[in-house]
Amino acid sequence: MKGVQIVEPNKLQIVDLEKPQIDKENNVLVRMVAAGICGSDVGIYHGTNAAATYPRIIGHENVGIVEEIGEGVTRVKVGDRVIIDQVTACGHCYACRKGRPNVCGNLKVRGVHIDGGYREYMAVPDRDCYLVPEILSDEEAVMIEPTTIAVQCCSRAELESEDTVMIIGSGALGSSILRIVKLYNPKAIIVTDIDDAKLEEAKKNGATYTINSLKEDVPAKAHELTEGYGPTVTIDAACVKGSLLTALQATGNAGRVITMGFSVAPTEVNQFVITSKELDVRGSRLQNRKFQDVIDLVNEGKVDLRGSISHTWNFEDAQAAFDFVDSRDPSYRKGVLTFKK
Amino acid sequence: MKGVQIVEPNKLQIVDLEKPQIDKENNVLVRMVAAGICGSDVGIYHGTNAAATYPRIIGHENVGIVEEIGEGVTRVKVGDRVIIDQVTACGHCYACRKGRPNVCGNLKVRGVHIDGGYREYMAVPDRDCYLVPEILSDEEAVMIEPTTIAVQCCSRAELESEDTVMIIGSGALGSSILRIVKLYNPKAIIVTDIDDAKLEEAKKNGATYTINSLKEDVPAKAHELTEGYGPTVTIDAACVKGSLLTALQATGNAGRVITMGFSVAPTEVNQFVITSKELDVRGSRLQNRKFQDVIDLVNEGKVDLRGSISHTWNFEDAQAAFDFVDSRDPSYRKGVLTFKK
Repeated sequence: MKGVQIVEPNKLQIVDLEKPQIDKENNVLVRMVAAGICGSDVGIYHGTNAAATYPRIIGHENVGIVEEIGEGVTRVKVGDRVIIDQVTACGHCYACRKGRPNVCGNLKVRGVHIDGGYREYMAVPDRDCYLVPEILSDEEAVMIEPTTIAVQCCSRAELESEDTVMIIGSGALGSSILRIVKLYNPKAIIVTDIDDAKLEEAKKNGATYTINSLKEDVPAKAHELTEGYGPTVTIDAACVKGSLLTALQATGNAGRVITMGFSVAPTEVNQFVITSKELDVRGSRLQNRKFQDVIDLVNEGKVDLRGSISHTWNFEDAQAAFDFVDSRDPSYRKGVLTFKK
Repeated sequence: MKGVQIVEPNKLQIVDLEKPQIDKENNVLVRMVAAGICGSDVGIYHGTNAAATYPRIIGHENVGIVEEIGEGVTRVKVGDRVIIDQVTACGHCYACRKGRPNVCGNLKVRGVHIDGGYREYMAVPDRDCYLVPEILSDEEAVMIEPTTIAVQCCSRAELESEDTVMIIGSGALGSSILRIVKLYNPKAIIVTDIDDAKLEEAKKNGATYTINSLKEDVPAKAHELTEGYGPTVTIDAACVKGSLLTALQATGNAGRVITMGFSVAPTEVNQFVITSKELDVRGSRLQNRKFQDVIDLVNEGKVDLRGSISHTWNFEDAQAAFDFVDSRDPSYRKGVLTFKK
């Protein structure tokens, strides 16, 4: 069988791999049908993801068909279409004991620290397999994984209907977060971006107010829109230089700021804004067993992931796919590698 | 009557003031007997406290005798010796509704935003008066207020016995925090400082391990002392340039970092350490109705505030007192202004 390997930063190869066999731990064999291309896959390709090691079979948004199951597996059956939770944790460290395997002290994420799902077959534990809603195509179903990321950050924010929420950035991540934030029915949702077209779309998708951060001072405008108090929750879905400080400055007293940035570059903050407002600045990484939550939301019609995919490639054309993503073509929204014969 | 006024930064004056009268809101008249000198009083004097406005009667660690009470007051009686909670809040903003008046959106702290307690009499609401334990002298009793700050930061950290706690800085604040952290019986307490003598004292006062940050790399050593995981809670009681980043780097996955810094100077952090470990970085400001907690701890013999005061001055000698604090005399630990005739 074949897979997509990042041999070293900026070197992608289609490699021959041994077809995995199920065992006691990895007791489900999945034949891949679709694998999403995430910004972090592109980051690993370019060597800018601080967590990744090489060589690496990347890919962590994986939808496939169960081809074989081990003894005693009841969670899934042969022929089921599943998406795979790629977080693997030790179960014994402080984070695991606290019910937070997504930041396990010995965390291994498939596609980042160990081999992932850009390959024709994968053997995984049954507990990591989730049944995909029938309403979604194979390609659309990869969107469940990025949606878990949005659910995780709202969970970390402990959103309530009493909150006023600001989302910094209206790209793929910010839009996905907006979709989830809406479900909490907050008092207001402010979305910021540098692109008026994206802000227009955010307005259509439920933003109460939008701010173009190239044209207005975000903390000042956010205060104006919230009777001087500031949003009670700010989610930094841009994670660029300066966005964390903007979030800290904008957020009101006793508020929460969620950061999802993975850059090791120094970012400026000041202690005064954190201390004087007793802010909670909370990292949000990956997701903590949120697949079923998202699948339930899709099945209940509360989240619609249809029509999200703009481009597909066969996985053997991964180089062309990554080159296209790098080209920043404006038609690109979300790409998927397919494994159909 | 007289009081100590900071007219503008670096200009301290003893001024004549009208003796306050009680009214419906400020229904207790307190005759001052002792007022602590806090680092933040010195900061307001020097113009380095971003929250303060001028001219200002400073002082927020105030012990006095109840001289007069309004109609219906039952919480205290004439002759009671009380310490005053100086936080005044609006009661209606988001923070107040969330039970966090210490970061009220319209917060007025006596001695910072409105006039405080470096004066012979003060009229305050009965709800802000707390009976001082008999075991403490008037001067020692001012220590209840800084101890509430330590209780607040441990409360913000949600300390549990399962935690390994690191305290950065072993000065007055760090020592006070150590005293409270011990009560949670954590797995281990690591104290860092640049001064071996202070670390020696921390060891005597219950630190399990100490790290001299001039001699060792704090994150690396903290990991070594915690089987590679890092402390689960780090409290930054130094709040100097670099201490927040040190705290973020040292703290283990799913841990909490408490910052108490009030500097508006830019501090470097990086988003990777916050996100990848899903840290919670929480500001801790003032205290949220913690006076009775501290008084109970003193009365139960769990916290001993006796012998904490190294220097006293009559309040009319406040200039000499502040000059002495500025001299950084090594004999100085905690100073108190007295109002005895």
